[in-house]
Amino acid sequence: MAKSKISDLFNRPIVAINLGLHSMADSIRDQGYKVIDLDWKPPMGDVPYLFVTKDGIDIDEANEKVVQKIKQARPTLVGMGLAKDVIPGFHDHLFLHAGPPITWERMCGPLRGNVMGALIFEGMAKDEKEAEKIAGSGDLEYAPCHHYQSVGPMAGVISPRLPVFIIENKAAGNLAFCSMNEGLGKVLRYGGMGPEVYERLNWMKSVLYPVLNDALQSMADGLDVKAILAQALHMGDEGHNRNRAGTSLFLRAMLPALIRKTSDKEKLAQVVEFIDKNDHFFLNITMPAGKAALDAAAGVEGSSIVTVMTRNGTDFGIKMSCMPDEWFIAPAPEVEGLFFPGFGSEDANPDIGDSTVTETAGYGGFAMAAAPAITKFVGGTPQDAIQTTLEMYEITFSEHEAYTIPFLNFRGTPLGIDVRKVMETGILPKINTGIAHKKPGIGGIGAGITRAPEKVFKDAFDALKAIC
Amino acid sequence: MAKSKISDLFNRPIVAINLGLHSMADSIRDQGYKVIDLDWKPPMGDVPYLFVTKDGIDIDEANEKVVQKIKQARPTLVGMGLAKDVIPGFHDHLFLHAGPPITWERMCGPLRGNVMGALIFEGMAKDEKEAEKIAGSGDLEYAPCHHYQSVGPMAGVISPRLPVFIIENKAAGNLAFCSMNEGLGKVLRYGGMGPEVYERLNWMKSVLYPVLNDALQSMADGLDVKAILAQALHMGDEGHNRNRAGTSLFLRAMLPALIRKTSDKEKLAQVVEFIDKNDHFFLNITMPAGKAALDAAAGVEGSSIVTVMTRNGTDFGIKMSCMPDEWFIAPAPEVEGLFFPGFGSEDANPDIGDSTVTETAGYGGFAMAAAPAITKFVGGTPQDAIQTTLEMYEITFSEHEAYTIPFLNFRGTPLGIDVRKVMETGILPKINTGIAHKKPGIGGIGAGITRAPEKVFKDAFDALKAIC
Repeated sequence: MAKSKISDLFNRPIVAINLGLHSMADSIRDQGYKVIDLDWKPPMGDVPYLFVTKDGIDIDEANEKVVQKIKQARPTLVGMGLAKDVIPGFHDHLFLHAGPPITWERMCGPLRGNVMGALIFEGMAKDEKEAEKIAGSGDLEYAPCHHYQSVGPMAGVISPRLPVFIIENKAAGNLAFCSMNEGLGKVLRYGGMGPEVYERLNWMKSVLYPVLNDALQSMADGLDVKAILAQALHMGDEGHNRNRAGTSLFLRAMLPALIRKTSDKEKLAQVVEFIDKNDHFFLNITMPAGKAALDAAAGVEGSSIVTVMTRNGTDFGIKMSCMPDEWFIAPAPEVEGLFFPGFGSEDANPDIGDSTVTETAGYGGFAMAAAPAITKFVGGTPQDAIQTTLEMYEITFSEHEAYTIPFLNFRGTPLGIDVRKVMETGILPKINTGIAHKKPGIGGIGAGITRAPEKVFKDAFDALKAIC
Repeated sequence: MAKSKISDLFNRPIVAINLGLHSMADSIRDQGYKVIDLDWKPPMGDVPYLFVTKDGIDIDEANEKVVQKIKQARPTLVGMGLAKDVIPGFHDHLFLHAGPPITWERMCGPLRGNVMGALIFEGMAKDEKEAEKIAGSGDLEYAPCHHYQSVGPMAGVISPRLPVFIIENKAAGNLAFCSMNEGLGKVLRYGGMGPEVYERLNWMKSVLYPVLNDALQSMADGLDVKAILAQALHMGDEGHNRNRAGTSLFLRAMLPALIRKTSDKEKLAQVVEFIDKNDHFFLNITMPAGKAALDAAAGVEGSSIVTVMTRNGTDFGIKMSCMPDEWFIAPAPEVEGLFFPGFGSEDANPDIGDSTVTETAGYGGFAMAAAPAITKFVGGTPQDAIQTTLEMYEITFSEHEAYTIPFLNFRGTPLGIDVRKVMETGILPKINTGIAHKKPGIGGIGAGITRAPEKVFKDAFDALKAIC
């Protein structure tokens, strides 16, 4: 077709949009017209667009309700306590763990290590051998943290006498709980076992926890986690694997009360040094902050938004808001990352931990564009970090007004993974995460990036389709 | 010329580089060849390229020496003291000020306010009227902070009994001094006067200063300012007008010693609250850190690098390394910025303060690409912030390996303003700054961005040319 003919046909400038292969538009391009090539991939199999459920519920409207509840959440650190004293329904033989439900027999190495170490920490077993026996005896009840308003990073075991942070969502009134962060390396949540692990945990229980809790009890309004996280995203954090700013701002905000309420200044100095040496400390506060926001958004009829996404090191599971009791499960994926000296991918356990609650709530890996320096820890380049966030906008229903990314001109973070959009685009959620050694007892060996497995979204979509 | 002819001529793909107007290359572009348009501006007047001095010194080699000295500097906060006790050459009637030398008669409003307020704070005048009389009586000696190894933000007056930070450059052994930051608004360094101003300063002298100094004295190695600033640039600071991360990391690093050394916990709580409420606190440490690095690089024969750049609110002055006793001076420029409620550009004093020591040392406005969120404070967009840093690479001799910008793939910050490059490119250094009310007594009214005036670089270049 001659140039003049196209112009004649439309009588205005022509811009073509090409949805297929680049070469498909070559003839138009050759005539000097502008062609925009859309980065389009075929959807996962046969994907009808789902608008309305059989009950007549508009899915977009339901999703809007869900993201509003997440945005309106006001997660506030209001206190601390031992798990069995503060988590509703806890009992002396309940051991919570990260990820979807799992039996002792199917647990991965680091989760086994965490359970066994927790038994020793609790004084329920005298050594690893006895711990292993008790762990597999059927005397313990295992349940996901997520079933008890809780989250735990990595193996994520919450045992009865473990101190936990208490987060209150001041908007909806619900609570969420999480353990304290021990640091990196040979630590219990990565499955690390040994005297130094229990010594640290005992100090955290006998000094760190009471010192922090006394300060918190004196703060009438608690600690506004939402405000700190919002600032931290302007300071190079993404709230999952980079929390240097959040940890700093947490300390700043706690200090006046910490100083006034702690009579033993040597203890206070130790507490401050412990937190100062662990830039991940604030992770265990951003996690339950996400849980408190997401729990408030669970159970909205007709919503295709993911409100739980988590892994136990064997399985990866998600839940949709519209089916709050239904797990969609697939094998946990491998993680690509950077390893600590002496370790490599052959030592790595598959993806593990409840920390994907951060991505689910609109930060973590989804906010990587806010945290270019994280690439020194998890690998990749700052350009990859930006690309990750841009890609996640493709599968999310909304953007979080409270959490914004300066480099994207203060655009809100991608919020609300929509199972329909994952299926349409074929783009799977990207996750920043730590890496545990696959054997029990060793601990953390690196950090990296992975994606959620396709199957959980296919299954969730099929379940949604069945009610549409 | 037909397409085939150009191809025949060179027998390979053609890419043209166009140094003139875009339209100059249209005929080549029309034939489908790639044309790169260079963003080229004519130099400022007649600019010969200067390579060697009359004494046979290679200017590039001299400049390399200068930037190496700046890079190798290890600014460390080693203690504090009252100005007259610790700054060499101080005496009871010496009042240091920001910028190049100036007489009382030519001082701008905020500098006059700062001098008068300092006289009241010192107990040398009972009120503003008496202070004004003494200030203009000839009994005081005025001198630039820069002449006494010191720097002061905004009007920057250092009076005899003002507490100052002591920075030691552990590489070269030289010292630098700076006052403590009072916060924003009605404060003395912006020319603010009034009982609340003196009350705050008296508290800073009687509580803040001794508490901080006691802690510092107990820290054997002092506080590594270079390490904190390097981290802060990965956390959204640029070290001049955004110091939220630096202030947080400063507190974290000081806390163990602060807690162990402070017996009165209420005083400590007040100190921590004061610092927590002022994200600019760390500025008064990044400034002398820059001064300590730059002073070590002053006096290198044949170097065209700027080692002093500063303003007193009336004049803007620079010095080149090769002429450490020579000021090049021009009127201080206006500042474009964001104003606090109730104030506007008609209230603004021209550019003022020694804080441009940060840009001179390779951070501040030069590192704006590290600090996109600063645009909420000084105006502009994150894109402008990136553009500013990219532009400053055009006029700097080197890049600072210790201070890197994650978003530019960890590229070093632009370091070492080269008078020759400013003249060649016509690009003037960009500066982040606070804005003072032009009348004495009122204080800070905003923050913004400006550029150094052309004249100081023309004059410096002429002086350089005269020795070449």
